[in-house]
Amino acid sequence: MKKQMVWVLSLAVVVLLTGAAFAQFAKTEDAVKYRQSAMFLIGQHFTRMGAVVKGEAPYDKEAFEKNAVLVESLYRLPLEAFLVPGSDKGSGMKAEALSQKDKFAQMHKATEAELAKLVAAAKGGDMNAIKPQFGAAGGSCKACHDAYRSK
Amino acid sequence: MKKQMVWVLSLAVVVLLTGAAFAQFAKTEDAVKYRQSAMFLIGQHFTRMGAVVKGEAPYDKEAFEKNAVLVESLYRLPLEAFLVPGSDKGSGMKAEALSQKDKFAQMHKATEAELAKLVAAAKGGDMNAIKPQFGAAGGSCKACHDAYRSK
Repeated sequence: MKKQMVWVLSLAVVVLLTGAAFAQFAKTEDAVKYRQSAMFLIGQHFTRMGAVVKGEAPYDKEAFEKNAVLVESLYRLPLEAFLVPGSDKGSGMKAEALSQKDKFAQMHKATEAELAKLVAAAKGGDMNAIKPQFGAAGGSCKACHDAYRSK
Repeated sequence: MKKQMVWVLSLAVVVLLTGAAFAQFAKTEDAVKYRQSAMFLIGQHFTRMGAVVKGEAPYDKEAFEKNAVLVESLYRLPLEAFLVPGSDKGSGMKAEALSQKDKFAQMHKATEAELAKLVAAAKGGDMNAIKPQFGAAGGSCKACHDAYRSK
């Protein structure tokens, strides 16, 4: 445990994919902003791992593991926003993400599995296992972005 | 358990308040965006509880509890961004938030305690206990916003 850590919290986050009472947005723009906010946070923590994997930042097992756990956790958050009709408008999400919900859900599930494996590799602490799994997770993200993100 | 729930996940989210290896931002603007993203997500889930407390939305114990847990969890996320020098610039955060770190940390801790009590009240499911605690949590948020938010 590092001295500079003030506190480390272990929180149980219960996330619901759908559920009308939970998935309310006052405006469609809020659904877009919700998704983008979560995606930004995910991107931040994923990029931090990327820097380590590329050798641009030193490997710190604890920090790497926390980033992996955060990405996996945050990955669940934006999902409800994807389901809001019209939330592709004025955003970087293609309309196909809403019209091809089954394929979209399938790709989402695949990424979810890769992120879980990344957390496991991060916990293991072996960079020879982490590197290929980071690549697999990134590839899964990219496949969905290529299919459903317009920019 | 509602049928419309596809899956409910309980995730352990480990959040670190400080720690250099973890708190990297490529640009100061990213620290601002990080904080704003987390605050937006918190605001969304807090507002959903507010609608129930005000009687504008029906009370659903499960959904209310999830919102409370999410707010409490997300509340930990943006903290590292508050510590970035210069992250008050171009944002709605007053410079005093950085120069009065002790007072700021104290107010943060107070809100944290109120949110924990809100989660407990939400789990209890008694609206007569939830309402005043939601008010106390909101009041604690507001006190810090009044002191350190310029808009």
